[in-house]
Amino acid sequence: MASGSGFPVRSVGILGGMGPAAGADFVRLFVQACTTYLHTNGHAVRDQAFPEHWLVQMPIPDRTQALRTDPQGPAGPALHMLQGMGRLAALGVGSVAVACNTAHVWHGQLQAQFPQLQVLHIAQETARHLQAQGAQQAMVLATAGTYQTGLYDQALSACGIAPLVPDAEGIARLMQGIYDGVKCADLALATQCFGDVLSTMRARYGDVPVIMGCTEIPLALPQATQAQDVQLIDPAWILAQALARQAYER
Amino acid sequence: MASGSGFPVRSVGILGGMGPAAGADFVRLFVQACTTYLHTNGHAVRDQAFPEHWLVQMPIPDRTQALRTDPQGPAGPALHMLQGMGRLAALGVGSVAVACNTAHVWHGQLQAQFPQLQVLHIAQETARHLQAQGAQQAMVLATAGTYQTGLYDQALSACGIAPLVPDAEGIARLMQGIYDGVKCADLALATQCFGDVLSTMRARYGDVPVIMGCTEIPLALPQATQAQDVQLIDPAWILAQALARQAYER
Repeated sequence: MASGSGFPVRSVGILGGMGPAAGADFVRLFVQACTTYLHTNGHAVRDQAFPEHWLVQMPIPDRTQALRTDPQGPAGPALHMLQGMGRLAALGVGSVAVACNTAHVWHGQLQAQFPQLQVLHIAQETARHLQAQGAQQAMVLATAGTYQTGLYDQALSACGIAPLVPDAEGIARLMQGIYDGVKCADLALATQCFGDVLSTMRARYGDVPVIMGCTEIPLALPQATQAQDVQLIDPAWILAQALARQAYER
Repeated sequence: MASGSGFPVRSVGILGGMGPAAGADFVRLFVQACTTYLHTNGHAVRDQAFPEHWLVQMPIPDRTQALRTDPQGPAGPALHMLQGMGRLAALGVGSVAVACNTAHVWHGQLQAQFPQLQVLHIAQETARHLQAQGAQQAMVLATAGTYQTGLYDQALSACGIAPLVPDAEGIARLMQGIYDGVKCADLALATQCFGDVLSTMRARYGDVPVIMGCTEIPLALPQATQAQDVQLIDPAWILAQALARQAYER
């Protein structure tokens, strides 16, 4: 598919709705990643230089809840995500980014069902990014569901990076910030919860990069005073940049 | 299509890419409009309570330029927009919002080609909103293309509201703010251009509502000191609320 600007680009897709505010923010990040890509590569930034991209935000059952009960059951998110992926595939996109960390537990299934698509993996992209920086350890802030599945543990370990995670009390406080905070539009509560967990972790592990491993965390953690001199890693931003490369380079 | 939250909702679509930053921001506004709708109507705000919605951002030829030369030509935006609308229609959406004011010049064509969809009209929604407030006059800040076509003139006049527009110098300054400012990520320049035009208009017409009739203007005008005590009307926010009602009420 041609962009009309003289260089070929490929249509890409974004599977969102988990939650919808984070999905909308991911589109903003993708547009920003394309702008950065155009600047870096000496192309003019104009409307017609952006690749075609599709976002679907669907009502998808809660990911963490499904992991606690029946991850493959009909009430879980897998079938809903496959339905959305199928329609993105029909639109002719070449790559898809899933705008939710926990949802990547089902990444293997999505990729296996759609071999014609490149389904990006948020934790693997993030681990490769940290590996390129020479990181040896990284803190992971995420949902209980993401911890339970070892999503970041596996991706980081595969790149030789030791994952550092909060204790049970810290995880409960993160969940409070995500569910009672960001998802209910109470950002002040979310900032307080996330900042508390970060304080405790830094007291224990010192100054290492911090992966904001849930798309809702970057909406509130950067405002916390405890986060001011910390290297915050936003996997959504890394994923958005990877998706821009898929559009412009494949 | 059911949302899984107990009340029926309808899938809706957003045609964007004009420009991509404004289209991404329109998704944010739509999610915010849904949140407001859920709160106002006593429903819990959770991921699964949001309607399915699709965004397509495509490389669409410049609207204002086409209006200067050949509005219906093959190099213009009409065929591209019809292509995007066709794919949104195939996805089963019931209503579509077009995230660009100038593009509404082709609204009649889009609506005629897709009678199965409700294509919302940004200027008509805005005029009805001002009429309900009892407004008698409104300033219109827009692109040269939008002025040339009388988009807001017609919609406001039909609602008994007198449109007030800048002179040629003011329009040139708005275009500078949109093309050299927002579209090139120079927001400081954009804020200065838009603020200057607003100053001149207020000196002439006094204190009347100001329609930000280009989706790029709300990204920079509200920050201008000249805009601090002005009733700014954002047609994109009014359109986002109309689209939320289409999803929840139709």
